[in-house]
Amino acid sequence: MAAIFTAPKFSSTPTASISAANTNIYTRIPHHVSPRPSLPRLPHACPRKTAVSCSHQHAPPPSSTTTKSTTRNRPDYVPNRISDPNYVRIFDTTLRDGEQSPGASLTSKEKVDIARQLAKLGVDIIEAGFPASSKDDFEAVKTIAKEVGNAVDKDGYVPVICGLSRCNEKDIRTAWDAVKYAKRPRIHTFIATSPIHMEYKLRKTKEEVIDIASRMVRFARSLGCDDVEFSPEDAGRSDREFLYEILGEVIRAGATTLNIPDTVGITVPYEFGKLIADIKSNTHGIENVIISTHCQNDLGLSTANTVAGACAGARQLEVTINGIGERAGNASLEEVVMTLKCHGENFGGLYTGINPRHIYMTSKMVEEYTGMHVQPHKAIVGANAFAHESGIHQDGMLKHKGTYEIIAPEDIGFERSNEAGIVLGKLSGRHALKKRLEELGYEIGNEQVENIFWRFKAVADQKKRVTDADLRALVSDEVFQPEIVWKLHDLQVTCGTLGLSTATVKLLDADGREHVACSVGSGPVDSAYKAVDLIVKEPATLLEYSMNAVTEGIDAIATTRVLIRGENNHTATNAYTGETVQRTFSGNGAGMDIVVSSVKAYIGALNKMLGFKERPPVKNPAEKTAVSA
Amino acid sequence: MAAIFTAPKFSSTPTASISAANTNIYTRIPHHVSPRPSLPRLPHACPRKTAVSCSHQHAPPPSSTTTKSTTRNRPDYVPNRISDPNYVRIFDTTLRDGEQSPGASLTSKEKVDIARQLAKLGVDIIEAGFPASSKDDFEAVKTIAKEVGNAVDKDGYVPVICGLSRCNEKDIRTAWDAVKYAKRPRIHTFIATSPIHMEYKLRKTKEEVIDIASRMVRFARSLGCDDVEFSPEDAGRSDREFLYEILGEVIRAGATTLNIPDTVGITVPYEFGKLIADIKSNTHGIENVIISTHCQNDLGLSTANTVAGACAGARQLEVTINGIGERAGNASLEEVVMTLKCHGENFGGLYTGINPRHIYMTSKMVEEYTGMHVQPHKAIVGANAFAHESGIHQDGMLKHKGTYEIIAPEDIGFERSNEAGIVLGKLSGRHALKKRLEELGYEIGNEQVENIFWRFKAVADQKKRVTDADLRALVSDEVFQPEIVWKLHDLQVTCGTLGLSTATVKLLDADGREHVACSVGSGPVDSAYKAVDLIVKEPATLLEYSMNAVTEGIDAIATTRVLIRGENNHTATNAYTGETVQRTFSGNGAGMDIVVSSVKAYIGALNKMLGFKERPPVKNPAEKTAVSA
Repeated sequence: MAAIFTAPKFSSTPTASISAANTNIYTRIPHHVSPRPSLPRLPHACPRKTAVSCSHQHAPPPSSTTTKSTTRNRPDYVPNRISDPNYVRIFDTTLRDGEQSPGASLTSKEKVDIARQLAKLGVDIIEAGFPASSKDDFEAVKTIAKEVGNAVDKDGYVPVICGLSRCNEKDIRTAWDAVKYAKRPRIHTFIATSPIHMEYKLRKTKEEVIDIASRMVRFARSLGCDDVEFSPEDAGRSDREFLYEILGEVIRAGATTLNIPDTVGITVPYEFGKLIADIKSNTHGIENVIISTHCQNDLGLSTANTVAGACAGARQLEVTINGIGERAGNASLEEVVMTLKCHGENFGGLYTGINPRHIYMTSKMVEEYTGMHVQPHKAIVGANAFAHESGIHQDGMLKHKGTYEIIAPEDIGFERSNEAGIVLGKLSGRHALKKRLEELGYEIGNEQVENIFWRFKAVADQKKRVTDADLRALVSDEVFQPEIVWKLHDLQVTCGTLGLSTATVKLLDADGREHVACSVGSGPVDSAYKAVDLIVKEPATLLEYSMNAVTEGIDAIATTRVLIRGENNHTATNAYTGETVQRTFSGNGAGMDIVVSSVKAYIGALNKMLGFKERPPVKNPAEKTAVSA
Repeated sequence: MAAIFTAPKFSSTPTASISAANTNIYTRIPHHVSPRPSLPRLPHACPRKTAVSCSHQHAPPPSSTTTKSTTRNRPDYVPNRISDPNYVRIFDTTLRDGEQSPGASLTSKEKVDIARQLAKLGVDIIEAGFPASSKDDFEAVKTIAKEVGNAVDKDGYVPVICGLSRCNEKDIRTAWDAVKYAKRPRIHTFIATSPIHMEYKLRKTKEEVIDIASRMVRFARSLGCDDVEFSPEDAGRSDREFLYEILGEVIRAGATTLNIPDTVGITVPYEFGKLIADIKSNTHGIENVIISTHCQNDLGLSTANTVAGACAGARQLEVTINGIGERAGNASLEEVVMTLKCHGENFGGLYTGINPRHIYMTSKMVEEYTGMHVQPHKAIVGANAFAHESGIHQDGMLKHKGTYEIIAPEDIGFERSNEAGIVLGKLSGRHALKKRLEELGYEIGNEQVENIFWRFKAVADQKKRVTDADLRALVSDEVFQPEIVWKLHDLQVTCGTLGLSTATVKLLDADGREHVACSVGSGPVDSAYKAVDLIVKEPATLLEYSMNAVTEGIDAIATTRVLIRGENNHTATNAYTGETVQRTFSGNGAGMDIVVSSVKAYIGALNKMLGFKERPPVKNPAEKTAVSA
């Protein structure tokens, strides 16, 4: 009955070889989950059980302070094999698939920041982008490869830096030119294998597709890349026998990881698990490579599908922070990792190298940078995930957290709102501020602390309590900003129901020169933005506008986020469709005056747009896809 | 291998009896899913297949206009049996469990509106509230029972109206007094059965819990209610043998539906499916009742768990619109229904009575009323669910939608943004406006159309294109408002970086008298809210504040949503914890001036608070839970 999550008898590694020195703490076990029994364990993936006994079922309700640490070595990285059969690699594609979300465009600087944070989180592979997409994408991947891809920590960990490419020589060469600077570079190439995609998108026969795929994998290896991932796009709807054949051929050609995407998010868990198991049982040479999952979320099943894939033998899981991505997004890192954390024991001992205490901070950073809001009831990282409606007797809940809580918020780096309390006030100094910011996970230079300090003082003068959430907003506004071209100096607005809204703005340009303009409009934001446009003279369309108060109280700080599209056609290439897409740019602003924060956000987005590099001219996308044919 | 979603051999109904007259269209099949073969079919639930052939795997990509309708009779409603073994009841608990989300409090009027919409959607059972929670909850359930619970449509469909109650006589009597006016009333009672809950929350032995549960089910039946649902709270962590025992006892006592909740969202699909299958195989008398699922979403697995439950034999699924609920919420109606729609054939022919074309409208209404934002990448109903980053060559996508789209947006009542086009302009009249609003799913009285018309004209004067989204915002502002106590007449604000923000407001009270006040503040909203407070004199704390632009363009309409908590302690009782919780109130405002819309939202929330009925004095909650002991 429990067959869906049981593993095939087949095992990709003949023996389990675990280092005896368990010195590095990668994970903390949430309460209700007992620590894993001692290693080594059986080489199979998930034992075939008829009744699964969950260790959390009868556990008494410990307080979160009783959670224990488990020590675990991350196996040494070898592209096509993992020494511990229970270790599951986490492949984060926030910077590539996540960035494909409408409106989620990131600048190079933002991408590097996120990549650094992903390394802190401990992801095994960072898919840093699609280098052939645009010059900016290329530069971002290259910078990440050079910086994040060479920052080896004291335990020898450094993330693999991966670049996506379509199955043509130019894309692959471009990807290699970007990732080769990393200590562990990887090329990820893909071609569609479903009848509908081969017929309508590629216009190629099965034989042609096999030929292109294996030639291009060989080409990638010939460049000197010994870590090559191949994906049969739309595998979920591909003919099974054809899949075995093409996968066998790319293994012969030198692929080291085979990624199986459910591109349209149509499969259900048992189906996806079976797909992985079938591939594992029927593909020639599969014992020499790692199988990977990539599940889209169109029916809301991506987390379950991904976990089913792991239980069926996949040892790399492709995920994004907050589950962002095109349409309904991807499997979310935090849900997949925490499910394995709570249930790994029942899945035969599966575990990852993720340090969940960085999940919350990473989630916030990705939300800020991409502008992709997380709904309050999002699992693990939503604002309500650990909140209970019961306000008055919350004590009771806290005493027996286990009654309604299966993960302690601290385990993902989230402070309970009633424990966070009043951290700073009017009299707090620079040192206290910097210390608290460090505790919250920010690494901030002295100059930035100075800027944040003066803004913190301005808030503390008007608010009795300056909470962690206020601080986060101030830091986001200071740290998560693009390089400055234009800066808001002064703003004055009159508005209301009685007359025309009028705004006057004074901006400083990069050289510090003052520019003043005024405009009327249909509201305070409209008039202020029009005044900014008079100075900046860079035509842009406002696509989205949103604002949130950070903390309770009418005097709270509001953060504004805008998304704009320039009229000067900043473009990139969509990896899957080959289509040219128009870039959009987001900007954030924080402040106690919503009109001021709105203008700051708009100027931030304009600065981001002005700082964006153009991609080189592109030939007909269809022609490009066919380069290798 | 596919055992997780295969059904037990056991079948709850010996034969399939389907009416030959297939006259009512309840569903539309999305493309890639072939229409169901003709009925009747085998009585088993899910055939035991080793390889599942998905009908969508090799389908050519039809345009959405080729989707076909299937006709299907909804089986007659009998509480403890369903004549068609493949029919799955949808139990919507948006108004009860969903309303338990922090900040999602709804007024009676809003609840009735949502209940009407749920009936339009075709849900089988509406859990309308927890009548013992507060006087307002009681009145809301009663009104829904009277109005929605008696609106029998031409096909004989009318939703069951259900009220929640703890396992004590007072709660059950109160629930009955509220639901008994419905044509099909149901009482839903529950008691915790997991060791941790029995020990720390109830402080009762197993024997005591069984005694309370069966006596209270008997009591509910004795009141004249022949439709009684029982839930063993935290079933996912309960002892299996104890579960069989207590469920067998409540069946003997007269329960007609047994709901199995995964209260803390800890289970994975195979585990939850097995729980349902085990209960079905081992509980005495189970063939005489309907098994139901209720899955929380703490690990992001609620949809998969719910579907696994259906495949294991559950024939009622408890869900909420947009998946709202405490913490990470519940399984979402739209994901569960569309998964069954896309895969029902592979699950042995499971189907529901939901008309998915009302999904989008229902989702928007619940989002508006509860203030629970839906993230852009939410499956099925998120803003991006059908959007592609590719802006320029969207034509290509539209020609071969099947390449990346498994559900046509029209099937859930969502217009493609590039097809929605410019629907109305400056010269459009009342008739065109009313017609378009009706097409969008609104039922609006003439007086309201008149009000919306004048605001529409004001927008059309300033915007070239008035889109469907603009209309929705205007209608929300007009229709989704509480009864008016205070009304904004005029507002004037000065703000900016140069000096103190100052606001002057003129409000009209219920009798039309004018009140004027002015105030300074830390921003335009702060100063305006303070001016409002000077007039209304009802102390409130602002908990949340958010704003979104409805459409593209700087001149877009912005909608503001606020959440407040009064200082005069509007309270209710939490069903599970028995704790007293403080009510919060949301308000919405729309307009082209963000300060004006902010003030409207605040006044809306204040009006909602002022119109809220107090609950009667409550005794010690622990004592209440123990009434039946």
